[in-house]
Amino acid sequence: MAVYTEISDEELDAFIGNYDVGGVISYKGIAEGVENSNYMLRTDGGNGTYFLTLYEKRVAEADLPYFISLMEFLASRGISCPLPVHSSDGLALRVLAGRPAALVTFLDGVSVRRPQPQHCTSLGEGLARMHLAGLDFPMARENALSVRNWRPLYTRSAGRADEVARGLAAELDEELQFLETHWPERLPFGVIHADLFPDNVFFLQGRLSGFIDFYFACNDALAYDLAICMNAWCFEADGAFNVTKARAMLAAYRAVRPMSSAEIAALPVLARGAALRFLLTRLHDWLFPVDGALVRPKDPLEYLYKLRFHRDIRDAAAYGIAP
Amino acid sequence: MAVYTEISDEELDAFIGNYDVGGVISYKGIAEGVENSNYMLRTDGGNGTYFLTLYEKRVAEADLPYFISLMEFLASRGISCPLPVHSSDGLALRVLAGRPAALVTFLDGVSVRRPQPQHCTSLGEGLARMHLAGLDFPMARENALSVRNWRPLYTRSAGRADEVARGLAAELDEELQFLETHWPERLPFGVIHADLFPDNVFFLQGRLSGFIDFYFACNDALAYDLAICMNAWCFEADGAFNVTKARAMLAAYRAVRPMSSAEIAALPVLARGAALRFLLTRLHDWLFPVDGALVRPKDPLEYLYKLRFHRDIRDAAAYGIAP
Repeated sequence: MAVYTEISDEELDAFIGNYDVGGVISYKGIAEGVENSNYMLRTDGGNGTYFLTLYEKRVAEADLPYFISLMEFLASRGISCPLPVHSSDGLALRVLAGRPAALVTFLDGVSVRRPQPQHCTSLGEGLARMHLAGLDFPMARENALSVRNWRPLYTRSAGRADEVARGLAAELDEELQFLETHWPERLPFGVIHADLFPDNVFFLQGRLSGFIDFYFACNDALAYDLAICMNAWCFEADGAFNVTKARAMLAAYRAVRPMSSAEIAALPVLARGAALRFLLTRLHDWLFPVDGALVRPKDPLEYLYKLRFHRDIRDAAAYGIAP
Repeated sequence: MAVYTEISDEELDAFIGNYDVGGVISYKGIAEGVENSNYMLRTDGGNGTYFLTLYEKRVAEADLPYFISLMEFLASRGISCPLPVHSSDGLALRVLAGRPAALVTFLDGVSVRRPQPQHCTSLGEGLARMHLAGLDFPMARENALSVRNWRPLYTRSAGRADEVARGLAAELDEELQFLETHWPERLPFGVIHADLFPDNVFFLQGRLSGFIDFYFACNDALAYDLAICMNAWCFEADGAFNVTKARAMLAAYRAVRPMSSAEIAALPVLARGAALRFLLTRLHDWLFPVDGALVRPKDPLEYLYKLRFHRDIRDAAAYGIAP
């Protein structure tokens, strides 16, 4: 949740004047999104409802064209996601209140708080479609939060990690060494969302209606996206892994994009890496909260328990699929 | 800003099922309102856009029928404000996620961040109309934050007030003694909004389009509402009192509801009281922040400077009006 930037009336009117959407009749800061300031905007022209995002400093400005172009590309390929609106002079990215800013179409839908197996089925199918649609996307962006970035992130928190749990620094160090040695290479690559938590997937009447928040998207192993989703969608609130949900997600995914045996074999390591990635960023945000961020930092330990689950299984059969 | 309560999908669907508004197609937590949890809701029936408020514990449940009925009453008298939607069984107040909750119509409009004199004119006129419309409202609610409530509030913060500014406790004590002795009685009474900050007044194309957030409304001296507005609308960001704005607001108000000479003479004392009331609540929230409130406490000292301004003037002529 974040509204970091206050926009003056004059700035907003001038900004919206660049678009063919009418005048502003309402705007509300939205209590979601950790990285950016988000507003829901109503106008008396165009579609009437828009989403306005101001990119705060955690998002690298140089990456914005990738994210904006990706949304346009995916939307043009039939993947439901917010569509950037171009201003009258053709720009999809402008400046507002000193920040890069984009106006996008408002996507109806409700994210599920407690995903059920049928949501995991829809997610698996939708994710595979998104992966296939992204294969032709001409731009590339390296994953800034992949295996080679974890140790620097770890180093910044290591000295204080044991404040969160005794022995955490040592456990993370050992896990890092394992992943740095065993991280799978040469898996099928493409555009991944890389942050597909339930918050970022909308449903309408039980059907997946769209994906949002592409600001971690990058080019990486497609199966790594599945590993992130497995962590975000298939554990219960009490920490238990729900194999029914994982099986549903993976089966639906594979029905659209068949996976190689190397990808399936790599899933447990990818899932450990995906758990470590969120554990490390949450740990950092927990220990060094951003001043002015109107968010409660998320519990890093949730991801420690997920990491341990994947470390303790024998192979991908634990996810309900044939290895 | 506040979204205190998480609502589960099932709870929301069951709640909305009580109303004739269609199904939920989108809902977003809104980053405004300190006392309650607010959501903007889109549905595929009815008006299509609604505002959902969950009343958190700072709002006394027994007062809710007053607030809800007041909005209905004012709306029926042509005052633009959110209109509570009744569920199919006639209730305007139900329970959601364990909290009292109300669905109200969504009011278009944008609050001004930096009010200009013409906004103060519109405000004065609109406030007077609201005061006149409320004269026949049959319910009554005592002001829970008026002169007799200030000392208990002061006492809770007094021991730590000097952490905020040296000498603050003594200055507040002295001011309290003055106000307790000189607080005006027998001024024209009626329903006041009691929290009419710029956030709570909407404009569309330069015209006042509505009032929101009636959760401090009560029966009190009408001129006290003006005093609150003077503090909230007529000081500049640098602390300077803008007499042009005050004159505009008061003249527009008096053109709709003439004020007695007693009311005008009382304005400086009312303005001191209005400043002290917000100073005391801000001081309390500053010293004892609510756990889980996703808000930055507001600076109490802003209201100390306003209080001193009113203490140092000779009479209401300082507000640009003939005493």
